[in-house]
Amino acid sequence: MRNFISVNDVNNISELIQKAFEHKKSPYSNKSLGTNKTLGLIFLNPSLRTRLSTQKAAQNLGMNVIVMNMDKDGWALETQDGIVMNQNTVEHIKEAAAVMGQYCDIIGVRSFPKLIDKEEDYSGDFFKKFVKYSNVPIVSLESSTLHPLQSFADVLTIEETKTKPRPKVVLTWAPHIKALPQAVPNSFAQWMNAYDVEFVITHPKGYELSKEFSGKASIEYNQDAALNGADYVYVKNWSSFEDYGKVLSMDSHWMMTNEKLKLTNNAKVMHCLPVRRGIELADEILDGPNSLVIPEAANRVWAAQAVLSEILKNNF
Amino acid sequence: MRNFISVNDVNNISELIQKAFEHKKSPYSNKSLGTNKTLGLIFLNPSLRTRLSTQKAAQNLGMNVIVMNMDKDGWALETQDGIVMNQNTVEHIKEAAAVMGQYCDIIGVRSFPKLIDKEEDYSGDFFKKFVKYSNVPIVSLESSTLHPLQSFADVLTIEETKTKPRPKVVLTWAPHIKALPQAVPNSFAQWMNAYDVEFVITHPKGYELSKEFSGKASIEYNQDAALNGADYVYVKNWSSFEDYGKVLSMDSHWMMTNEKLKLTNNAKVMHCLPVRRGIELADEILDGPNSLVIPEAANRVWAAQAVLSEILKNNF
Amino acid sequence: MRNFISVNDVNNISELIQKAFEHKKSPYSNKSLGTNKTLGLIFLNPSLRTRLSTQKAAQNLGMNVIVMNMDKDGWALETQDGIVMNQNTVEHIKEAAAVMGQYCDIIGVRSFPKLIDKEEDYSGDFFKKFVKYSNVPIVSLESSTLHPLQSFADVLTIEETKTKPRPKVVLTWAPHIKALPQAVPNSFAQWMNAYDVEFVITHPKGYELSKEFSGKASIEYNQDAALNGADYVYVKNWSSFEDYGKVLSMDSHWMMTNEKLKLTNNAKVMHCLPVRRGIELADEILDGPNSLVIPEAANRVWAAQAVLSEILKNNF
Repeated sequence: MRNFISVNDVNNISELIQKAFEHKKSPYSNKSLGTNKTLGLIFLNPSLRTRLSTQKAAQNLGMNVIVMNMDKDGWALETQDGIVMNQNTVEHIKEAAAVMGQYCDIIGVRSFPKLIDKEEDYSGDFFKKFVKYSNVPIVSLESSTLHPLQSFADVLTIEETKTKPRPKVVLTWAPHIKALPQAVPNSFAQWMNAYDVEFVITHPKGYELSKEFSGKASIEYNQDAALNGADYVYVKNWSSFEDYGKVLSMDSHWMMTNEKLKLTNNAKVMHCLPVRRGIELADEILDGPNSLVIPEAANRVWAAQAVLSEILKNNF
Repeated sequence: MRNFISVNDVNNISELIQKAFEHKKSPYSNKSLGTNKTLGLIFLNPSLRTRLSTQKAAQNLGMNVIVMNMDKDGWALETQDGIVMNQNTVEHIKEAAAVMGQYCDIIGVRSFPKLIDKEEDYSGDFFKKFVKYSNVPIVSLESSTLHPLQSFADVLTIEETKTKPRPKVVLTWAPHIKALPQAVPNSFAQWMNAYDVEFVITHPKGYELSKEFSGKASIEYNQDAALNGADYVYVKNWSSFEDYGKVLSMDSHWMMTNEKLKLTNNAKVMHCLPVRRGIELADEILDGPNSLVIPEAANRVWAAQAVLSEILKNNF
Repeated sequence: MRNFISVNDVNNISELIQKAFEHKKSPYSNKSLGTNKTLGLIFLNPSLRTRLSTQKAAQNLGMNVIVMNMDKDGWALETQDGIVMNQNTVEHIKEAAAVMGQYCDIIGVRSFPKLIDKEEDYSGDFFKKFVKYSNVPIVSLESSTLHPLQSFADVLTIEETKTKPRPKVVLTWAPHIKALPQAVPNSFAQWMNAYDVEFVITHPKGYELSKEFSGKASIEYNQDAALNGADYVYVKNWSSFEDYGKVLSMDSHWMMTNEKLKLTNNAKVMHCLPVRRGIELADEILDGPNSLVIPEAANRVWAAQAVLSEILKNNF
């Protein structure tokens, strides 16, 4: 593995899962692997879990970590080629990525979509250019369309809690007051499709994810029907892909509650966090015995550590 | 000691003082104590001394440090229970603290009061919840009502400079152009009451601190009378506790000057910094031989190092 | 060497160059030099290259690094003496620098000019006070007037690519949409004058740099004439020194292009970055074989490492 931008960068998911669990069991046994190696974490947007867990993972491997916040005014990157830079962008990605690649051995980058131009957001252009110009391995800390470190942690969480070989996993849309990216559900769908589960996606009409990522998943517009017999329910809001970036529904009936949990096979409930209580998920779920949200967040460390470890082993 | 939120968390102040002086004498002799331990520093408000000194202390102990600034737009924490999160708060403290507790072995948190609702600010709710949900030791980097790392450094500074067993220490209010929290004076009073000094507080009427913290201190409204024979003068502005958060006086006669110093027993002058020159303290004091403000700030490292060291020894 | 504020702090440039190349050849061979030493990096303004490269250099030397961003609202430093601080500044440099000096063994500081008051910007007052009050070695991360870590990296880049003992180096003004400081060109001129090259500065009339820094350089108002036979072209915008801080020209004929490159001796093209493509430099130059901008940025690490290493060796 050189880059970690999507599930397609992983040769063997089962192997990577096992490696992550080895790191979890013995966090500091690879501390010399990262000696004199620098991880740069570049945030074009806010971050809590990704920031802390990836930093922790790198330190467990003995790496140096340099964090750069570019989310504030005054360091907007230009990505278009051949442009005359007489507007707000202060540096072209060609130079910025190349320079960072000189200082860092591996670079993690977060860059959210603007949710205005679907084609631009879904082109993957930003990460392709970062890979091309930085000349070092690139780890996505969430792109316009995918959040693979989150999805890998989600897979770890299912793997270590599942009680049957092929559980039923339901990804359900939930309401929110803001228009959110599709990155987390896209990415979760992509990983579920690559992992061995029965996978169903449920959402109001108009919230269909890109087929590129939802792939072979069953789509069910009736949430109750979808939840029937579920072993895992993954709750997440996203804005429309079709009517790009729009909020088409705030229907509170889609909020996950204990009542709905009764329809499932005593399902475990997951969410990538941060979660809006009382909007996406009822307090009773988050505070109840079926919630996996905290161990799920904790697994972010081992997901990142397995990924960084593989990159270190294969590229240096 | 598990948490460090107030002086009440300290079993034995004299012992902790001695340990701090041992760290000061030999800063790096406990460098293996923090190996593979991560300190998270979470700032909901700006910080200079606390940020740098606590980071330095942790590094002296061999800890990894992860700093997270949550003071900017976009990561406001919800603390109320049972609320529907359809407003500005993006994450509930229940999740945020629990997640941070998964990534960090010890968490330092700074959260200033809003100075609007006295009951809310003085409830200690935020730190109680952080302790409860994070499940790891919590160190206050300044709360709504207290600043124990500052006060402990203040005690160290008095201890190493005092020329009599029981010096007279005067905490005096000083003018300022803004409404400031009562955290530093509350905390200083709390520690002076737990430490062996003659302790007097002086301020204009209406600036009485909460009895919870001022306790057995003598209150003297006449600053000149209070300063008489003082060995230490601790200068600080605060807004009214009674008329909560209000600025009742900007009377420049309360500024500490060399003229006032004559009333004292050649007192040493202290201030937690940052200080407004020419408002709280005259230049002649800060630039003169009686000022302890810089060694006082320097002692922040040893206070933090003693606290972190005790927590590491007792909880891991 | 104690401080690194300008080229005048360097005893022997040739020796420092050789040391930088030794670090470049063997980055981690001095890793014990910085053990238990803390570098504080204080940014009053944004930074990418300086932030990452100096952090990397310090980590290569085994130092701890603490980064403090003071560029946001709420921590404006007062530098004037004897002032009543009843306005926006929250802390005097006397206290801030002294306190940081207690926590850090070496301090790097970035403080841009406001470009309003020439005398204030060119007084060097801020850095003089930081040196005076911090009581520890100070490294400029770019001052109002100079950027010595950049210039030293520029010298390294010329030294390792030059094909004749005394190349012709042309510093050329280029257009920009904003008023930029003179720090980079001042500093480059100062270092070129101290280094053994044929040095020419070219710019529109009114853009003369301070003689204090341009010194013995030839000034040529005709860019084409200046470029004739150049081995290196250093491209940079700056605002007027005479008509202080003003943009007097946006003449796009001053942009460096392949056409202009024909006038030179197949010159290598340099720029400190960030660069505005299509304004300061044509894409064809930046994407072409003559550009040195990325190796130039890469050399920032070795410049910083040589400087920090010298300071560590000579002061501790």
